[in-house]
Amino acid sequence: MNKPWNPLAIPQPSSSAATGDTGRGAAIARFLKVRGQTEALARDLHPEDQTVQSMPDCSPTKWHLAHVSWFFETFLLVPHLPGYKVASTDFAFLFNSYYEAAGPRHARFARGLITRPTVVEVADYRRHVTEAMTDLLAGADEAAFARLAPLVEIGINHEQQHQELILMDILNLFAANPLRPAYRPGGPAAGGQAAALAFLDYPGGIFEIGHAGEGFSYDNEGPRHEVLLRPFRLASRAVTNGEWLAFIADGGYRRPDLWLADGWARVKAGEYEAPLYWELHDGDWQAFTLNGLNPLDPAAPVVHVSYYEADAFARWAGKRLPTEAEWEVAARGLPVAGNFLDSGALRPLPAATDDLPAQMFGDVWEWTQSPYVAYPGYRPAPGALGEYNGKFMSSQMVLRGGCCATPEGHARATYRNFFYPHQRWAFAGLRLAEDA
Amino acid sequence: MNKPWNPLAIPQPSSSAATGDTGRGAAIARFLKVRGQTEALARDLHPEDQTVQSMPDCSPTKWHLAHVSWFFETFLLVPHLPGYKVASTDFAFLFNSYYEAAGPRHARFARGLITRPTVVEVADYRRHVTEAMTDLLAGADEAAFARLAPLVEIGINHEQQHQELILMDILNLFAANPLRPAYRPGGPAAGGQAAALAFLDYPGGIFEIGHAGEGFSYDNEGPRHEVLLRPFRLASRAVTNGEWLAFIADGGYRRPDLWLADGWARVKAGEYEAPLYWELHDGDWQAFTLNGLNPLDPAAPVVHVSYYEADAFARWAGKRLPTEAEWEVAARGLPVAGNFLDSGALRPLPAATDDLPAQMFGDVWEWTQSPYVAYPGYRPAPGALGEYNGKFMSSQMVLRGGCCATPEGHARATYRNFFYPHQRWAFAGLRLAEDA
Amino acid sequence: MNKPWNPLAIPQPSSSAATGDTGRGAAIARFLKVRGQTEALARDLHPEDQTVQSMPDCSPTKWHLAHVSWFFETFLLVPHLPGYKVASTDFAFLFNSYYEAAGPRHARFARGLITRPTVVEVADYRRHVTEAMTDLLAGADEAAFARLAPLVEIGINHEQQHQELILMDILNLFAANPLRPAYRPGGPAAGGQAAALAFLDYPGGIFEIGHAGEGFSYDNEGPRHEVLLRPFRLASRAVTNGEWLAFIADGGYRRPDLWLADGWARVKAGEYEAPLYWELHDGDWQAFTLNGLNPLDPAAPVVHVSYYEADAFARWAGKRLPTEAEWEVAARGLPVAGNFLDSGALRPLPAATDDLPAQMFGDVWEWTQSPYVAYPGYRPAPGALGEYNGKFMSSQMVLRGGCCATPEGHARATYRNFFYPHQRWAFAGLRLAEDA
Amino acid sequence: MNKPWNPLAIPQPSSSAATGDTGRGAAIARFLKVRGQTEALARDLHPEDQTVQSMPDCSPTKWHLAHVSWFFETFLLVPHLPGYKVASTDFAFLFNSYYEAAGPRHARFARGLITRPTVVEVADYRRHVTEAMTDLLAGADEAAFARLAPLVEIGINHEQQHQELILMDILNLFAANPLRPAYRPGGPAAGGQAAALAFLDYPGGIFEIGHAGEGFSYDNEGPRHEVLLRPFRLASRAVTNGEWLAFIADGGYRRPDLWLADGWARVKAGEYEAPLYWELHDGDWQAFTLNGLNPLDPAAPVVHVSYYEADAFARWAGKRLPTEAEWEVAARGLPVAGNFLDSGALRPLPAATDDLPAQMFGDVWEWTQSPYVAYPGYRPAPGALGEYNGKFMSSQMVLRGGCCATPEGHARATYRNFFYPHQRWAFAGLRLAEDA
Repeated sequence: MNKPWNPLAIPQPSSSAATGDTGRGAAIARFLKVRGQTEALARDLHPEDQTVQSMPDCSPTKWHLAHVSWFFETFLLVPHLPGYKVASTDFAFLFNSYYEAAGPRHARFARGLITRPTVVEVADYRRHVTEAMTDLLAGADEAAFARLAPLVEIGINHEQQHQELILMDILNLFAANPLRPAYRPGGPAAGGQAAALAFLDYPGGIFEIGHAGEGFSYDNEGPRHEVLLRPFRLASRAVTNGEWLAFIADGGYRRPDLWLADGWARVKAGEYEAPLYWELHDGDWQAFTLNGLNPLDPAAPVVHVSYYEADAFARWAGKRLPTEAEWEVAARGLPVAGNFLDSGALRPLPAATDDLPAQMFGDVWEWTQSPYVAYPGYRPAPGALGEYNGKFMSSQMVLRGGCCATPEGHARATYRNFFYPHQRWAFAGLRLAEDA
Repeated sequence: MNKPWNPLAIPQPSSSAATGDTGRGAAIARFLKVRGQTEALARDLHPEDQTVQSMPDCSPTKWHLAHVSWFFETFLLVPHLPGYKVASTDFAFLFNSYYEAAGPRHARFARGLITRPTVVEVADYRRHVTEAMTDLLAGADEAAFARLAPLVEIGINHEQQHQELILMDILNLFAANPLRPAYRPGGPAAGGQAAALAFLDYPGGIFEIGHAGEGFSYDNEGPRHEVLLRPFRLASRAVTNGEWLAFIADGGYRRPDLWLADGWARVKAGEYEAPLYWELHDGDWQAFTLNGLNPLDPAAPVVHVSYYEADAFARWAGKRLPTEAEWEVAARGLPVAGNFLDSGALRPLPAATDDLPAQMFGDVWEWTQSPYVAYPGYRPAPGALGEYNGKFMSSQMVLRGGCCATPEGHARATYRNFFYPHQRWAFAGLRLAEDA
Repeated sequence: MNKPWNPLAIPQPSSSAATGDTGRGAAIARFLKVRGQTEALARDLHPEDQTVQSMPDCSPTKWHLAHVSWFFETFLLVPHLPGYKVASTDFAFLFNSYYEAAGPRHARFARGLITRPTVVEVADYRRHVTEAMTDLLAGADEAAFARLAPLVEIGINHEQQHQELILMDILNLFAANPLRPAYRPGGPAAGGQAAALAFLDYPGGIFEIGHAGEGFSYDNEGPRHEVLLRPFRLASRAVTNGEWLAFIADGGYRRPDLWLADGWARVKAGEYEAPLYWELHDGDWQAFTLNGLNPLDPAAPVVHVSYYEADAFARWAGKRLPTEAEWEVAARGLPVAGNFLDSGALRPLPAATDDLPAQMFGDVWEWTQSPYVAYPGYRPAPGALGEYNGKFMSSQMVLRGGCCATPEGHARATYRNFFYPHQRWAFAGLRLAEDA
Repeated sequence: MNKPWNPLAIPQPSSSAATGDTGRGAAIARFLKVRGQTEALARDLHPEDQTVQSMPDCSPTKWHLAHVSWFFETFLLVPHLPGYKVASTDFAFLFNSYYEAAGPRHARFARGLITRPTVVEVADYRRHVTEAMTDLLAGADEAAFARLAPLVEIGINHEQQHQELILMDILNLFAANPLRPAYRPGGPAAGGQAAALAFLDYPGGIFEIGHAGEGFSYDNEGPRHEVLLRPFRLASRAVTNGEWLAFIADGGYRRPDLWLADGWARVKAGEYEAPLYWELHDGDWQAFTLNGLNPLDPAAPVVHVSYYEADAFARWAGKRLPTEAEWEVAARGLPVAGNFLDSGALRPLPAATDDLPAQMFGDVWEWTQSPYVAYPGYRPAPGALGEYNGKFMSSQMVLRGGCCATPEGHARATYRNFFYPHQRWAFAGLRLAEDA
């Protein structure tokens, strides 16, 4: 999942067909559905909750709600809907995330200072944009619709990304409140057992990875290209909280030999002592989740670890993280199904045991050992949307597979998410690998 | 006006008479009136506005509303109302400002992260405390009431201080919003002329300053003691925006010889280029106020300057700032009247010309050249309330007189406000002085 | 003692007589003697030692050696010696400390990056200046000499101040070296007993303080003026290490009620746990001194404490710090004698018991409760030397009396030293006071 | 070239033969030669120059001189020379760079505070170690010598790396001195023309890269493994200063579309405006070099640019940086010859035109687009030397080829140097590439 500062990719040329077979009515319906899903996520949040920014990496819910609307306004309504009036001339400044070509913009770290427009005014803004978009789509002739459809598809995918970000960010905010409010109290019961860990064999050879042209993708998923893999083995499921407890018990956070130097510097600075949101209460670990503060479920996948922690764990376990190519080769052909946002669980759940590998999609994003760089032949597209496609391709690491906060239908085998190696507020865990 | 991190002083022994002559009904009425005034200040603010903290020096409106209630709860209800149930056991942690003896507390800089309790829940908390206080005061026997009255008086004065802080802090918050929302649009028209500047003569000699025991005071206003003054002269009114423009035009912010070294360091770092909240639009200065962004009124007192700026201006003008003793000697005997919060202007206004010196009370707090230190014989009182009476007596400077955000009745000639010399978000200006 | 960023004061008009009675030969002799003393302080330091800056408050020995020469060059040789050639046109930039009117200058914090000119080249520079100064003084006619003498006197006093700074700064540097090198190994033996503590009575009344016009003084010591004092009592000697151990043992660094809020913030941040340079080795306190690491001498005055610590100690002891006026009234008439730099001890020593009050001069600078502000009627002088006389008069506290690193003859009853309340690298201790 | 915080790699098993054919005498001679070369680099530096640390990334010359000796002491003398006495028990703490398993150590950023041991004492230390090493090597029996030889080889290579670091760091130090001292005045004259730029074709396919086992290598150069390359083209020489001037003239540092987001953030923060050490004097660019401040040579390779700048330049030029595999495939088979330290030029020189590609070795390290990660199958070795082999494999980028400060014989086609993408004080430039 791309983040607000991530490249907003443009679709592959061939992907314009993505919506072609669904037709205009379907496109409008899908647009309205996604808009409604976003609003549903904010429904139980108070105006206070939607306004505050807990750290520079995060944004207020209210900002997300407005920004995704600004996106439709800027890239569809203003250039394509004759006579469209922007809801406010201030919003281009306030709600542009990082598009240099789209003009000056408000500082990211200061998004939480903007108490106006209010939540109510942002809802008005959303309605204004949704209605205009419906008009635009309904009123376009066939040729125009064909040109607009790929842009709408980007806007929809963009809004889906921000659905996940809303949840990541609200969890971070609530974790900073001594009252530890639950975004959605309750949630699934713990208590199951984790499936036994196995390592599945994959042969080496030359494989093609990257998006093949069917359906929507971000441009960082292409060009499709050949990679040379050596035989490898991949864990049958994600690493669990129980396994992480063993790492802690074995001094995992106290042994410099397990860590990359940059990671160890963070351990020494006191930043890493356990996964983010873990709390020790009377000797028992609890985890703060969107369901509130719960006893740690040993069978569930560990989540909210940094790349440095994932790497240290793998070294401790005598294994390694997979490359993104290995992961993709293993994931292709598997059904894109799992514990996504739509399950309502809002947190990773223990792996079911029948289909292997389990949890490739959903539950937790899986750190790979691959730095986020351009695929061979990748070219940034011209213009505002494409201008920055590659500008985040330094110092970040690729994650794969989607998580319990990713909307159903947004994940795929070629999807490349990325974060800096020290970041932990994403729903990120890991799966082990080893050489065959 | 004391600030949240300022000493919460206990009354002088003799000041317990302050409420004695007004009676119980009057005390309850006064309590209820002040509570209502506080709530009125927040009435036009949205929940979003009340939640955000624009800088560590500031606090959210919501926090102020809750903190002053916690104060009554902690120092009156819990110890003195049998059977009183605190509204929430979490609030002692969340809403204690700086009372070490009252237990651990939430970090000041993180007050803006607390989206729960919501504005509605804080209103419930206020109601809970107000009702219990009314019960306490109405139900106390005469002896108990006599013991409680001074504490109630502190609580009321404390809440008045926070009324001013609410306005200071909301102005700072709105100034950080590119939309520049007006707290209260409209406001008085500019356009008058400033009264001519005169210097009034005061003789030297031995004078008594400090609070004399009549009515309420904070303990930092005593003990009353003798000071030796040389003959001096005091300006007939505060320095105006027009005079400040001349200072700027004469290179006031570019000449190191005018500045204290610590102040010049801030000029060089780009912190000071004009008073806080001044903005240059197309060559014209505008000032952001609680009434919104307005053309600068040359006749009105300059406000939102630091001590360093005030000191540099005085040096440029060939004058100096008064000492706090000089100010107090000049102010005693004058009616405590002026442009306070109750005028509704919400910003400093040009001086009326008939009574001299003008503007001693209200409009702007006036920086003095006196560091904030203990008066001779001052002793911190024991216990939670008095524990910290003197703990802010270092590195700050005294200001006198009250401002347009100070509630009527809260100011007096002996009142000692104090801020660090670099701070500018208070309604602080200056009045010139010179040796006779 | 003024520090490099302190005002370089000009002498009082009447003080030009200071050298008048000693004659030209005496002036030259005194100049040469002080120059030689400075060089003697650096004699046992390696080039490496003389180059490094251990923190921004400190300067390299080499810089001190050059800066005091630049001072003579800038204020005497360039304007007054016809045909004088500066040693290097770069030195005005490198060795100007803080004189804005004397032109741009090298950043204070970066003084330690300047490995060239080398120690040898700086010695050449000193010789160049010393010789030219001798020429200037020997060759001036009577009228010229009379005009130059006060400037020479400033330059000499200035260089004496830097003698103390050289020692303060080299101690700080060596303390940062795990090898803990001794500036001068050996030193006086510990083991004596501290004189019993008594409190001496002083009457109240109106007193004159400030420099009276006899001999040299800095302009911040005047104008002489009347102050009103209440009867007070002053401790017969400085607070000792032994007394400080009792403060520590009684939780002095763990009780917020003893501290000013700004000081307590530093305690909580871990900055203050014992006086600077104290180290706990196997349960015993040792002190790092110019003589190296030694067992703590309980009878000697405590040194290297901040104002915050001194204030907390006084509160713990049920006393207070004296005002600078009280100190001066008590010190006047006492012989200016004590453990100065010339004793060679290089650290404070236990008080002798016969003359009371003891240790008023020498051993340790004594923190007063007086903020460093201008005396009534003080006027900054025009021009480069006087331009900044008052520019340090904010946020600092006055210390009195001189210390074991102050050159003999540099101290006097009216001398006002000043540091920020958090600073600890000066030889600063305290003497208690109380109301009579 | 590895840096002090880089992995100290252990040799490949097969590389123990590296010195086997040269024999014991040759080994001793080589050891002594490298020791002498290091000392020669410091010969013209004053003790002052050798002591100061200009930024945390750098170390004092003196520290380098001692650290490489500590390395021999720790990994050869202490474990292998019976009866060896360490020169000082303090040195293990002071001169361990980053070996966690070798015990606690002095903070990197504080290396410049250590004025003792002095330069003279460090010279003694070096002599002590050199003599003991000679004893060890001369006295070992054949079996022992065979075991020691690979460790000696590491120590020698390690010392060579620090030769380059000494020059990088002293240049950085001198650049911070307003006097801009020249490490070695003079140097080669500018004025030649750059060879015309051509792009050389390379076919795609499966290639082996990594060290093959002949001669010494660091473990990060292995295991040798297959990579799949697409056809590509590589520039015939490095990018020149002249070409960089065109980039600047075309707004290269003002166009966000050319930059990675992390790099653009540094441009906006004012960190990047031209390559490090470039200075604009009266409209002409000059470059500060080890030969002092010189007019920029348009024909010479640009040097002291960050990865972000190299990447932006390539994008501006419509090209890209090569991968490390592409570079290695192109470099294999070429003679490892070029403008190394031994040429004495001490700065990059214009490319000779006859052999293509030119400048693959020497002149400037060439940024590749490859993040520094482990080769497939790489395993960190156990023990102190190998403990940290991989610990720097995050967030850094690979550079190839060696530079004008790299000792002859230290470079090779498989050598992987690495720096963080923002770092600029290495002699780093770039060579363009493109898809065929």
